[in-house]
Amino acid sequence: MKLQLTSPLDMHLHLRQDNMLKVVAPLSSKTFSGAIIMPNTLPPISTKEQLLRYKEDILNATKGDTFTPYMTLFFKNDYSREFLESIKDEILSIKLYPAGITTNSEGGVSTIDVESLRPTLEIMSDLGIVLNIHGETDGFVMDREAEFVPIYKALAKAFPKLKIVMEHITTKASADALLEFENLYATITLHHLYITLDDVAGGMLQPHLFCKPIAKRPEDREALLELALNANPKVMFGSDSAPHPKSAKEAPGCAAGIFTAPIALQLLAQLFDKHNKLENLQAFVSNNAQKIYAITPAKKIITLEKKSFKIPSSYGNVVPFMANEEIGFVIDN
Amino acid sequence: MKLQLTSPLDMHLHLRQDNMLKVVAPLSSKTFSGAIIMPNTLPPISTKEQLLRYKEDILNATKGDTFTPYMTLFFKNDYSREFLESIKDEILSIKLYPAGITTNSEGGVSTIDVESLRPTLEIMSDLGIVLNIHGETDGFVMDREAEFVPIYKALAKAFPKLKIVMEHITTKASADALLEFENLYATITLHHLYITLDDVAGGMLQPHLFCKPIAKRPEDREALLELALNANPKVMFGSDSAPHPKSAKEAPGCAAGIFTAPIALQLLAQLFDKHNKLENLQAFVSNNAQKIYAITPAKKIITLEKKSFKIPSSYGNVVPFMANEEIGFVIDN
Repeated sequence: MKLQLTSPLDMHLHLRQDNMLKVVAPLSSKTFSGAIIMPNTLPPISTKEQLLRYKEDILNATKGDTFTPYMTLFFKNDYSREFLESIKDEILSIKLYPAGITTNSEGGVSTIDVESLRPTLEIMSDLGIVLNIHGETDGFVMDREAEFVPIYKALAKAFPKLKIVMEHITTKASADALLEFENLYATITLHHLYITLDDVAGGMLQPHLFCKPIAKRPEDREALLELALNANPKVMFGSDSAPHPKSAKEAPGCAAGIFTAPIALQLLAQLFDKHNKLENLQAFVSNNAQKIYAITPAKKIITLEKKSFKIPSSYGNVVPFMANEEIGFVIDN
Repeated sequence: MKLQLTSPLDMHLHLRQDNMLKVVAPLSSKTFSGAIIMPNTLPPISTKEQLLRYKEDILNATKGDTFTPYMTLFFKNDYSREFLESIKDEILSIKLYPAGITTNSEGGVSTIDVESLRPTLEIMSDLGIVLNIHGETDGFVMDREAEFVPIYKALAKAFPKLKIVMEHITTKASADALLEFENLYATITLHHLYITLDDVAGGMLQPHLFCKPIAKRPEDREALLELALNANPKVMFGSDSAPHPKSAKEAPGCAAGIFTAPIALQLLAQLFDKHNKLENLQAFVSNNAQKIYAITPAKKIITLEKKSFKIPSSYGNVVPFMANEEIGFVIDN
C-alpha cells in the first residue's frame, strides 16, 4: 500500500547552527516542502541581518531540495513598528519564549501579560504577523502548561485579530482552551502523540525521550490524539524536532529535546493508519497550516509505502526518536 | 552547635552483594546502629541458608562497627507455616514486591489482594512477623502509589493484628491512609523529603535523582514533611539508599535508586534544623522504629556538628545524593 502526501509542512522546527544545521537541515528538506524555523539560536534571531544570514545558511544547507524555510523572529518587547514593518515580508511569525523556559531562551520575556505585551502585540495584530508562544509558567513541571492557559485566553481575548499559535501543546487543558477562541491555533508534535511521562520515567529513565514541555498524562495524550487524528482545523503538525549531540543527551543534566525530523512522516503515517485515520493525515501535515498561515508551499509529493523500516541508531551524532525500532512505513521517493 | 543522636536506625536499606556490599555496608554501619536489609538480591533472599549467608557477608563487611543487620525475607506466597516458624527469630519482617516493580523484583507477587495473600499473611499475623510492602501498581508513574492505597487499606482491615509498613511513601494519599488504620506504619526516605519531580525533570534531566517510587508533587512532599518533622509515631526513617554504579546511572535506561546512606543523618539534621524541629529527629531516626518493631538496638551515640561539609563526588563508583554540594552538618565521631 502506498500513500501520497502533497507538500508536507513542519510548522515548528529547530535547525540550530553551523555543523548541526548542516547535518539536520537536509533531513527536513528531503521530506518537507517547508518548515517554520525557530529563532532560539545563539544569539537569538532578532535583527533583519541575522534573519537573512540564517535563512541563507539554511538555503545553502538544503540546496537541491524543494524546501522553504519560513523564518521567525525571537520576540522582544521593544521592537518598533518601523522595524516590524520593514521585516514583515521576511517572516511568517514571531516566537515568544518565557525567559529561561527552554534551550537558548534566556533572553525571553519575564512578564507575560496583556498590558506588558500590548504595544508589540498591537503592532503585530495590525501587520498580520502571527504570534507563536511556548506556553509554560515556571511552576511545577507537570502543571506549567495548564498554568499558562489563562494567559493564552487573556491574550486571545485582548487581541482578537492576532493569530496566536499555542506551540507544541501537551495537555487536555490546552486542547480545551484552543477550541474556545477563534484566534487560537496549536501545533502538535509527533512525540507527544506517541509518549507519556511513563515512557520517559515510568520504567528506566530515558534521556532520549526527555523534552520540554515534558510528556504528560495518558488523558492528555488522548486529547492530542483526538485533535490530530481528526485533523481538527485548529491544529497543525509541528515536530519541535530538536537535535542535541548524543553526548549532551546521555549525561547528567541531559538537554531537553527529541529529534524526529527524518522519521516524522513515517511515524505519523503509522499512527494515523493504526487508528484508521490515514485520510486525515494530509490536512494535519499540510492543508490546515496552509489555511492558518495563509501560505501556499511549493508542490512536493512524498510517497510513503507500508513496508518495514528500521529507524537508524543515529543521524550524524544525533540519536533519533525510536532509534533502532522497526516501524511500518518507509519513504519511497 | 552539636547534636547527639542515640542509636540511629535505617529501616529500609539496600546493601546489594559482593563488591558493592563491601563498599556500601561500612558507610551505613559507621553511622547507624542497625538497618533493615532489603532482600531483593540476585537471587532474592527466600531460604534460611541464603539469609544466614547474606547476614554473615554483611557482618563481615561491617566488622568493627556496632551495627545490627535486621534481616528480611523476600515475600513468596508459598512459604509454609513450618518454614516461617523456623526462620522467624532470624528476621524482623518479610518484604512484599509487586512483580517487576523495581530492581530485582521479577520474582514478586503478581496478584496482590486479600484472598490471594490470606494463607501467608495469616501465618505472619499469628507469628508476629511484620509485612513490608513496596506499594505501587503498574499504572501511570505519577499515580502508581495512590492507586495502591486501596490495597493497603484492604490488607490493614483484613489482618488487623498484622503490622504493615508502607515502604518509602511519596504521596499525600499514602500519608492520609496511614493515619486511618492502627496497624499501618510507614518509612520515609531522605530524598523524598528533599525533592519533587521538578528536581528530577523540571530543569535538565537528572539521573542521580531518579528513583522508584519517583518523586512526586510539591503537596505530596509537604505531607511527608508534616509526618517526618513532627516525628509522627506512625513513621520511621528508611533511607531506601540504593547504590548503583555511576555507569548504570549515567546512561540511557538509567537504573532507579538514590544513594544516601553516608550523608543521610547530616542531611536529616539540616532539614530538621531548617524547620526548627531538631528535637524530633531522635524519634524519627530511632525511637519510633524501636516501638513499631519492638526492638532495642545496641547503644551508639552519633554526634553531629553544625559546620560546613562538602558531600563527596563519589563513594567508590557510586555517586551520592547531592554530590559536591556544601551542606551545614558534619558527623563528628
